[in-house]
Amino acid sequence: MSTKEKLRIIPLGGVGEVGKNMIVLEYADDIIVIDCGVMFPDEEMLGIDLVIPDATYLEEHKEKVRGIIITHGHEDHTGALPYIWPKLRVPIYASRLTRGLISVKLREHKILDESYLHMISAGEILSLGAFRVEFYHVCHSIPDGIGLAIHTPVGTVVHSGDYKFDQTPVDGRLTDYARLSKLGEEGVLCLLGDSTNAEKPGFTPSEKVVSETFDHVFAQTTGRIIVATFASNISRIQQVIDAAVQHNRRVGILGRSMIDNVRMALELGYLNLRGTQLLRLDEMTRQPPSRVAIVTTGSQGEPTSALTKMANQDYKGLQIIPGDTVIISATAIPGNEELVNHTIDNLFRLGANVIYEKAMQVHVSGHGSQEDQRLLLSLLKPRFFIPIHGEYRHLTLHARLAQQVGIAPDNILTIENGTVVELDEHSIHHNGSVPAGYVFVDGLGVGDVGEVVLRDRKLLSQDGVVMVSVVINAQTGEPLNDPDIVTRGFVYEREAGDLLSAAREYVRQTIEDHRAGPAGWSFYNNLIREQLSTFLYEQTHRRPIILPVVMEV
Amino acid sequence: MSTKEKLRIIPLGGVGEVGKNMIVLEYADDIIVIDCGVMFPDEEMLGIDLVIPDATYLEEHKEKVRGIIITHGHEDHTGALPYIWPKLRVPIYASRLTRGLISVKLREHKILDESYLHMISAGEILSLGAFRVEFYHVCHSIPDGIGLAIHTPVGTVVHSGDYKFDQTPVDGRLTDYARLSKLGEEGVLCLLGDSTNAEKPGFTPSEKVVSETFDHVFAQTTGRIIVATFASNISRIQQVIDAAVQHNRRVGILGRSMIDNVRMALELGYLNLRGTQLLRLDEMTRQPPSRVAIVTTGSQGEPTSALTKMANQDYKGLQIIPGDTVIISATAIPGNEELVNHTIDNLFRLGANVIYEKAMQVHVSGHGSQEDQRLLLSLLKPRFFIPIHGEYRHLTLHARLAQQVGIAPDNILTIENGTVVELDEHSIHHNGSVPAGYVFVDGLGVGDVGEVVLRDRKLLSQDGVVMVSVVINAQTGEPLNDPDIVTRGFVYEREAGDLLSAAREYVRQTIEDHRAGPAGWSFYNNLIREQLSTFLYEQTHRRPIILPVVMEV
Repeated sequence: MSTKEKLRIIPLGGVGEVGKNMIVLEYADDIIVIDCGVMFPDEEMLGIDLVIPDATYLEEHKEKVRGIIITHGHEDHTGALPYIWPKLRVPIYASRLTRGLISVKLREHKILDESYLHMISAGEILSLGAFRVEFYHVCHSIPDGIGLAIHTPVGTVVHSGDYKFDQTPVDGRLTDYARLSKLGEEGVLCLLGDSTNAEKPGFTPSEKVVSETFDHVFAQTTGRIIVATFASNISRIQQVIDAAVQHNRRVGILGRSMIDNVRMALELGYLNLRGTQLLRLDEMTRQPPSRVAIVTTGSQGEPTSALTKMANQDYKGLQIIPGDTVIISATAIPGNEELVNHTIDNLFRLGANVIYEKAMQVHVSGHGSQEDQRLLLSLLKPRFFIPIHGEYRHLTLHARLAQQVGIAPDNILTIENGTVVELDEHSIHHNGSVPAGYVFVDGLGVGDVGEVVLRDRKLLSQDGVVMVSVVINAQTGEPLNDPDIVTRGFVYEREAGDLLSAAREYVRQTIEDHRAGPAGWSFYNNLIREQLSTFLYEQTHRRPIILPVVMEV
Repeated sequence: MSTKEKLRIIPLGGVGEVGKNMIVLEYADDIIVIDCGVMFPDEEMLGIDLVIPDATYLEEHKEKVRGIIITHGHEDHTGALPYIWPKLRVPIYASRLTRGLISVKLREHKILDESYLHMISAGEILSLGAFRVEFYHVCHSIPDGIGLAIHTPVGTVVHSGDYKFDQTPVDGRLTDYARLSKLGEEGVLCLLGDSTNAEKPGFTPSEKVVSETFDHVFAQTTGRIIVATFASNISRIQQVIDAAVQHNRRVGILGRSMIDNVRMALELGYLNLRGTQLLRLDEMTRQPPSRVAIVTTGSQGEPTSALTKMANQDYKGLQIIPGDTVIISATAIPGNEELVNHTIDNLFRLGANVIYEKAMQVHVSGHGSQEDQRLLLSLLKPRFFIPIHGEYRHLTLHARLAQQVGIAPDNILTIENGTVVELDEHSIHHNGSVPAGYVFVDGLGVGDVGEVVLRDRKLLSQDGVVMVSVVINAQTGEPLNDPDIVTRGFVYEREAGDLLSAAREYVRQTIEDHRAGPAGWSFYNNLIREQLSTFLYEQTHRRPIILPVVMEV
């Protein structure tokens, strides 16, 4: 090693999960980026469509960026490419299925042709500037996931990707124990480890458990079976196909994203129909119920998804009928619980039997739990450890667990997005931070909605808006008409006539009382806003946003 | 029995949990009401403070109503009294602690003096018209809960209240097995059974499990211990006091509702300080940390609660310091998960150790699980069964469980709020329905906010509002000024100058193009709304509410 340079590790992406959507590694004149995903807006981010990481730091050091490596095909690791890639225009590296999913996305955004999208495979090593990036296979809830062993001038940094140690995965490909333990022998400087399930004791159960439940349910059921899961969960779809073939059913696919993904996975060979043929929509209703299995979107209760529409009796071509069995093969993502619960309630109302996580093991997580995390740490024996992919509590618990398996407390860093970590063979420490807020995507706007707009949306959502318009004599301040009031989201206007009449009169009187000659519209604007706000609060205990329009003639 | 009258059972209160907030029993000329509680608004009910049942049916039959019986002191069973009682003005019956909690509430609303608030006790029988209402003790997460055995001319109806079978409750008072099995022997016509935990297998663990965890944590901790729980969970507060006394700590109370409830529970003898004295706020910081335990509000991450403020470093008089241990002794109510998670994250950030449900058993439910539900059914052996206190999926699972213990499927009714159930000795069936929607409380308004206002709030929260004002010549339609545009929650005005200039020009041009002489303001209002909406959607893919003000001079 020829220099005294330090390796810098920087997770980007707001106050959510650290490094989930994007992590930057920098050494001297070289930067590589790991993942480029979206976050879904939380309930405070009113009207926001997507949340992407702030890539300012990368834009400012564009000439250093050697490539973007995507660990697997989930939205929270790929979804920001259409927004961030055009600003960097560097090669993208991904495994075969991941590449397929990304190409669909880039094509939708009409940038596929100009992008540099390379396929890499587990076992390969890629040289990107000072970095030699080695890929190893990991099990996750989507096939073709990879972890990274990044050989740098100061040592090897392992990025776990999203992983679990499944001994019996659906596609038969295990997380690469052999390579991991070899890496451990060779010496790992630092592990960046997935903390998602740091609250969960034990090992995450194998996908096989789900296959067993499916087998049990399929064996006992005579009506149609409808399975809702994530469109990206290709192995879960394979499990449904396997159970269906075993129990003499044919499989239909519903939901646009599910259909797209199944088509792509079939083309690339990641799904195996086992000699059967997919059902067309009309066949799903015409075949005997005992011969039909359906895989659908809607496991999160998304209002426009196929299952949710079926539950609301609003899906063209297929209706839930008594005797149907619906399996929700997914966990509700935080924030979606109520949507999922409403869907389950409505399905029960229609006479379906609903099997969901609370009743049977119809889903397992794609992320390792505490014992998986211990095992990874034990295999790699890293000198330094940085928990990633989690909110602060997950990172804290993961850090604590790393201490338990023998990593010195001083060698563990719990960081936030934007924190710059510097390390070399001997030491690790924080060194300042870079911009790492959220960038909101709202309609066509990327980054144009910020805290001010969100605060207004919040206020509007609570008590609505009241617009007051009045024409005054510019010279005397005398009101020339009766003030006009229009409201939205404040009171039901048709039944609030008395209140609004009183408010109109109050505004007129207020202007009369404060007549100030040629005081200018901003004087009257402020006057009306303040006085009417107080008046309406006294009357209703609500605080609508007040928009006065004073026209002087 | 002299008549052919049927008994009517009607749960009220919108599409949420059936009969949770209010159930009506009617026989001939007599009505009794069980519970009168609030629901907390879900995330779709923007700006709403509280949700109460629609009591139209009771108002219309006011002369029949003999009284309101409250089963226990939780908000979802008591909170609507200040809104509904004034319309009925009938006696209220409640056990001692429940009555204390209700009187605080009625005093706040300045109606305590005029109300008729009677104390009843487990073991008593109360005659209300055709009903003889017997009270029996049940364990729940608040002391002094009761179940009801309502002896009617057609038979005995048991209302379970909120209950569990705890063999080792904190106050030593068991759910009254003896009376329940006696009732079963005497013959129960119909059971209305709490379904809250119908998804949970096994028995609900005893409160004792929590005491053991507290004992373990208190024994191992040297810093301050801060326990957050529901202000109404008097027995949990007692458990903290017990552990504190045992481990030589004194207890401080934080949070207004917690302080109020503790004061009242001490007065009524439902809390026992075991010879210690409560800490004042200044003592909580001055005493050695190893001698301090604090009970606080904030277990739901409520933004204005004491714990949340501490987590945000915004609580006057007390700061979280490294070494503090915070126990979240509650489950996050659906919808509050993210708030609770953020609070936990922030506490970890401040260096506290946080112990929450996922890590240790620091909370148990107050509701019976599947085995409790089976036991109740087996003790009572009711002829008919109506699952209550649950959303549709809970009721469905509870109904299924009742079948498993031998109740004939035809004798089980799964109903919704508003459904009228009619029954006599031999039969049970639906017979129509009564109004049972939600009534929203928003500020001082009760029932004045409905679907229209909520829909506008939703739209406003998504894309904001755009107000356009323009003065035109009433005769020619000629615009007399440059249109003025003000927005809130749509774009950040300071950075959207180009868009807004273009929009102003677009509006001016639109009016010019459509100049229609004395067409009237509503013509121009509609014109501007439609055209500008299209223009802004093309530019931004957002759909703000557009409020035009056209003044003709």
